[in-house]
Amino acid sequence: MSAIDIIAKKRDGYELTASELEWFINAFLEGDVPDYQMSAWLMAVYLRGMSVAETVALTQIFLESGQQMDLRQVGRPTVDKHSTGGVGDKTSLILAPLLAAAGLVVGKLTGRGLGHTGGTIDKLESIPGFSTDLSPEAYLDMLNKVGLSMIGAGPALAPADRRVYALRDVTATVGSFPLIASSIMSKKLAGGAEHIVLDVKYGTGALMPDIQQARSLAELMLSIGQHFGRHMSAILSNMNQPLGMAVGNSLEVKEAIDVLQGKGPADLRDLVLALGAELLMSAQVAPDLVTAKQRLERLLETGAAFDKFVEFVAAQGGDPRCIYEPSLLPQSPQQLTLRAPVSGFVAAVDALVIGQSVARLGAGRIRQEDTIDYAAGIVLHRKLGDRVEAGEPLATLHGSTTNLLEKVAPMAQAAWKITPNQPVAEPLIAATLRP
Amino acid sequence: MSAIDIIAKKRDGYELTASELEWFINAFLEGDVPDYQMSAWLMAVYLRGMSVAETVALTQIFLESGQQMDLRQVGRPTVDKHSTGGVGDKTSLILAPLLAAAGLVVGKLTGRGLGHTGGTIDKLESIPGFSTDLSPEAYLDMLNKVGLSMIGAGPALAPADRRVYALRDVTATVGSFPLIASSIMSKKLAGGAEHIVLDVKYGTGALMPDIQQARSLAELMLSIGQHFGRHMSAILSNMNQPLGMAVGNSLEVKEAIDVLQGKGPADLRDLVLALGAELLMSAQVAPDLVTAKQRLERLLETGAAFDKFVEFVAAQGGDPRCIYEPSLLPQSPQQLTLRAPVSGFVAAVDALVIGQSVARLGAGRIRQEDTIDYAAGIVLHRKLGDRVEAGEPLATLHGSTTNLLEKVAPMAQAAWKITPNQPVAEPLIAATLRP
Repeated sequence: MSAIDIIAKKRDGYELTASELEWFINAFLEGDVPDYQMSAWLMAVYLRGMSVAETVALTQIFLESGQQMDLRQVGRPTVDKHSTGGVGDKTSLILAPLLAAAGLVVGKLTGRGLGHTGGTIDKLESIPGFSTDLSPEAYLDMLNKVGLSMIGAGPALAPADRRVYALRDVTATVGSFPLIASSIMSKKLAGGAEHIVLDVKYGTGALMPDIQQARSLAELMLSIGQHFGRHMSAILSNMNQPLGMAVGNSLEVKEAIDVLQGKGPADLRDLVLALGAELLMSAQVAPDLVTAKQRLERLLETGAAFDKFVEFVAAQGGDPRCIYEPSLLPQSPQQLTLRAPVSGFVAAVDALVIGQSVARLGAGRIRQEDTIDYAAGIVLHRKLGDRVEAGEPLATLHGSTTNLLEKVAPMAQAAWKITPNQPVAEPLIAATLRP
Repeated sequence: MSAIDIIAKKRDGYELTASELEWFINAFLEGDVPDYQMSAWLMAVYLRGMSVAETVALTQIFLESGQQMDLRQVGRPTVDKHSTGGVGDKTSLILAPLLAAAGLVVGKLTGRGLGHTGGTIDKLESIPGFSTDLSPEAYLDMLNKVGLSMIGAGPALAPADRRVYALRDVTATVGSFPLIASSIMSKKLAGGAEHIVLDVKYGTGALMPDIQQARSLAELMLSIGQHFGRHMSAILSNMNQPLGMAVGNSLEVKEAIDVLQGKGPADLRDLVLALGAELLMSAQVAPDLVTAKQRLERLLETGAAFDKFVEFVAAQGGDPRCIYEPSLLPQSPQQLTLRAPVSGFVAAVDALVIGQSVARLGAGRIRQEDTIDYAAGIVLHRKLGDRVEAGEPLATLHGSTTNLLEKVAPMAQAAWKITPNQPVAEPLIAATLRP
């Protein structure tokens, strides 16, 4: 085989065989196919696309290039949730202990935030003492004893995807559906869970701008998961505005604790219940969606999910006092309130702009190696459709200095649009896909 | 500006501005844009195309990256011909002295052969002593005194194109029209001639497989040339079978000498006259095509063109005795005759297969650094539409050893197709384009 022939075949829109893909990716890993040939191929894939069969084959190559968790020894249904990334998305912090409290085993190999989206690892690490760097043995021990663990997806996971992704990032080929799907699914499959629910977000703060694209990506990932024998479902959820009210690492942990205590914003709670119910159904531990949701709601009301979260935090080295008393979590020394310039209805709280503002406040990374301020972030007081009078607070910015807060305030303020008439409400969950 | 933004803009099919292109190519030359970003961009250009304005801008960047000949001091009309490459294409060897004999000045910066197509430089260098490595001063001196010079297009010419081409070659992005056109035209423009005729070939042995593509490429190159104030025309010529009867370096020089002596194959002579007449018209030294062709034919009949060729060869260090007595040119020690297996009409003499066979005989290069056998090649005895009886010779292979000849013979034989009925003739010249 020759790299040029494989590039030309994809350039001309033909389907590559599994063995052609395997040869090409492996030759790339071994340095026989240089970066410039891989990047020409990536652009050809971006513009010509890939069939489901090609995407499955690529996923398998990525998957088999690294470590794969074997969770069969756990002996109970193993579940996982993947979100394509959003602003204020702290669902994993709530969903994981909730499902563990329901008797499922939740193992998550998860990532750090980059750009305007947050990462679960960063949120957890805002809890003093919490460690996301566990050995595979310690991780499996957590799953057996606590029924729940979340650790960093290390370099041993799908290293071929990691190498390819590094090139996609600098060649404007990140946004290719088959490349996104194979990248995400190879890492999800390596995590080993039998039941996987995907939260594919669409809107300004999401990877996918609109619901049609979110649906296409979700369908592709469902096909891949099914091909590897996993029980799959997907929810398409709205990310035009942030999820919940809090955006920023320790601020989001506090909001997650609220929901685990039976309180918290309705949209966040609704999404958690919907995702959780999918997994209870998939694992066949609930007869129908209504029963599944009722059971999960009860676990929130009774404090069983909260207790599981405390147990989980303590077992991974975090200080459990911070969960009972969230004011012990990192707090910003300075706050600044954004106020409504006019009276009316909130017609937009742009998730992308809020995410970027929070990153500027120090809560996110522009580059992989940046350090972050766990306490920084934004707490919203008004969301889409809410009535607000001129001068009333829209949001509170949290940051390390007044200077920084004042620098970021105009950008954050620009996320809001206030109109005289109440806008049409957008549903949080647009669709649920079950293959 | 950012390389990723420029790649993404082209990826999404938008037109790049001249300053974006200039920034990108210069950053590439300076090493700030790495190969892998250039190759992703090249694939995006391949699949998304470029406007005429973008192609003109790219040509200018390539052109201005290197040396440019200033031929204005010559004081007579300066002309040049460019062929997109073919098999048996020795037109330059005839056309250049013919036009010089007609009073025009012919300066050609030209290339070596690669793959199945031959290069004018290689053909000239098969003449003992001939040098194609002249300084710019010696080259201009030749143009002033002899009216004619052909030298190698060195690395000082459009070096930016050279760097980009090296990547196109290994990333399956050679066949992009705007990239081909800007690459060719930047080097033609650097040569400095006021009047340029293009011979854009189509068919199995050509860069362009069909006439529609040849026309598109020709039109793009005409637009570029006009934008830079050059007088342009183009001929679309058939390359489904080799041009003339001889393929191989010294064999082609012999055939060129035949035509310069008023003999030689009709197709070769016709194409030379057509290309030459375009330039006489363009330079306004002939009132119409008929007069132009008659004048050129007379220069062949009288020996004036032949004498100019002898003068040219001698002035560039070649042994003029070889021109008077072509048997002094390199000769292969071995020959092998291909014979018709059945009686009938020649329905195909595949130019690509003949070109590849000749390269295998040692007359061409697979890689840039290969050395070549000047004497090797194939002389055809029958061409498209000719009647042949079983056992009659189709062609003679010339090579260094009988072993080599026998190895290549089956491949060369496969170029022929013989059918019971005479095939419909294909015109040699399909169209002439004058903007």
